[in-house]
Amino acid sequence: MKKGIDAFTIAEVAARAGVHETSIYRRWGTKHALARDACLDHADGALQIPDTGSLRLDLIALLERLVALLDSPEGRALLTLSLSQHPHVVAARHAFWQRRFSLVHAIFERAVVRGEFPRRADPMPFMQMLIAPLYLRVLITGEALDDWPSKEMVDRLLTAYAVPPT
Amino acid sequence: MKKGIDAFTIAEVAARAGVHETSIYRRWGTKHALARDACLDHADGALQIPDTGSLRLDLIALLERLVALLDSPEGRALLTLSLSQHPHVVAARHAFWQRRFSLVHAIFERAVVRGEFPRRADPMPFMQMLIAPLYLRVLITGEALDDWPSKEMVDRLLTAYAVPPT
Repeated sequence: MKKGIDAFTIAEVAARAGVHETSIYRRWGTKHALARDACLDHADGALQIPDTGSLRLDLIALLERLVALLDSPEGRALLTLSLSQHPHVVAARHAFWQRRFSLVHAIFERAVVRGEFPRRADPMPFMQMLIAPLYLRVLITGEALDDWPSKEMVDRLLTAYAVPPT
Repeated sequence: MKKGIDAFTIAEVAARAGVHETSIYRRWGTKHALARDACLDHADGALQIPDTGSLRLDLIALLERLVALLDSPEGRALLTLSLSQHPHVVAARHAFWQRRFSLVHAIFERAVVRGEFPRRADPMPFMQMLIAPLYLRVLITGEALDDWPSKEMVDRLLTAYAVPPT
């Protein structure tokens, strides 16, 4: 069985989409660019930004979506692909994360307005402390994701940010 | 120039160490096992467990050592090597991390005795939140490690653990 990028042809994609092959080549240029965008679309779809009206619930919902994605075969494949050191992949990965962090920023802007997060604090280190252990576990330590106490960690960090740093 | 595992021979290692080649083969069996143990030794040496008498200072010292290692060519090479999906590498990586976490545990045991960390709290999620963002940055987002506010994050987490969870 062919795997990865060799498992499909542009002709097959065009046939399934009901468009002409040239339309796909015109838009994406290469099969790699098409596969990359399909992966990123999948990640964006799986990690939609919640808006529950509560910072705590938004963060818990986002972490639950991330655990589900990282525990799925598609999520693992996407993560493995994204770790390539090929310059195009590195650039696409960094751009993807910059865009994701700016989307996540909206959660904190709403929280600041509701008085749930200090206006002067930088939300990005907060967010990275919440999500990074999941990546550490998948990529490095091999520990199970469902052992990770996401809710407790959200509550601990919210406590930490409610108290002014000494 | 030869790189990685092809850059040296057992004969060269034996000559430098002043021992007979068979001594090396007897102990390690393969060049891969020798290279793996050399890497792990290097990581252990670079990441010695501090004992300053203060949990806060122990954590800051450990994070500074980790940043220095991850910012060094040796540290990057070791990390890239360790991400291989080869079953032997995966097993060695998981064993290394289990051992490292048990070493780090000593920092928290001393802190519990000094009344600096709650006896009932699990220190491992605490530790993973501190170190994981550094790995996220190196492997995934590409952000600089020296932008990471290690000391502020240590202080925030210590605050979070000083207050009982709601």
